[in-house]
Amino acid sequence: MKSKAIFYHAGCPVCVAAEKQIALSLDPARYDVEVVHLGTDRARLAEAEKAGVKSVPALVTDGAVYHINFGADLAALR
Amino acid sequence: MKSKAIFYHAGCPVCVAAEKQIALSLDPARYDVEVVHLGTDRARLAEAEKAGVKSVPALVTDGAVYHINFGADLAALR
Repeated sequence: MKSKAIFYHAGCPVCVAAEKQIALSLDPARYDVEVVHLGTDRARLAEAEKAGVKSVPALVTDGAVYHINFGADLAALR
Repeated sequence: MKSKAIFYHAGCPVCVAAEKQIALSLDPARYDVEVVHLGTDRARLAEAEKAGVKSVPALVTDGAVYHINFGADLAALR
């Protein structure tokens, strides 16, 4: 069964680079990757925050959060 | 042709979690992943530093560095 992986970003250059390299490089046989743009989809800010996301870009999978480099603080997107 | 991806870590819990989740989740059809433990393999510190690694865990691929969460500063491993 595939795991769900959600990649949260905000469209910044740091986010886009990380998305291309990390999120889209995960093994498609094992991961269903969803990409969420928190800058345009603010309705999902609460969900990201609840998952433990502090800044973007971040990857959430199997209940763990991985902050990849630093693009923007989550608070800056509210 | 496969890309090379090097995952640098230092054996800390943050590193090990990121290794399992990120480094080992990359698509094996596209990436040859090498895992380097800088705590035991200090000879590779200079190489990591040259690639732009500031802290571990970090993933270097296609000339770009992705710092994933924060385990230890590279300076602490010297």
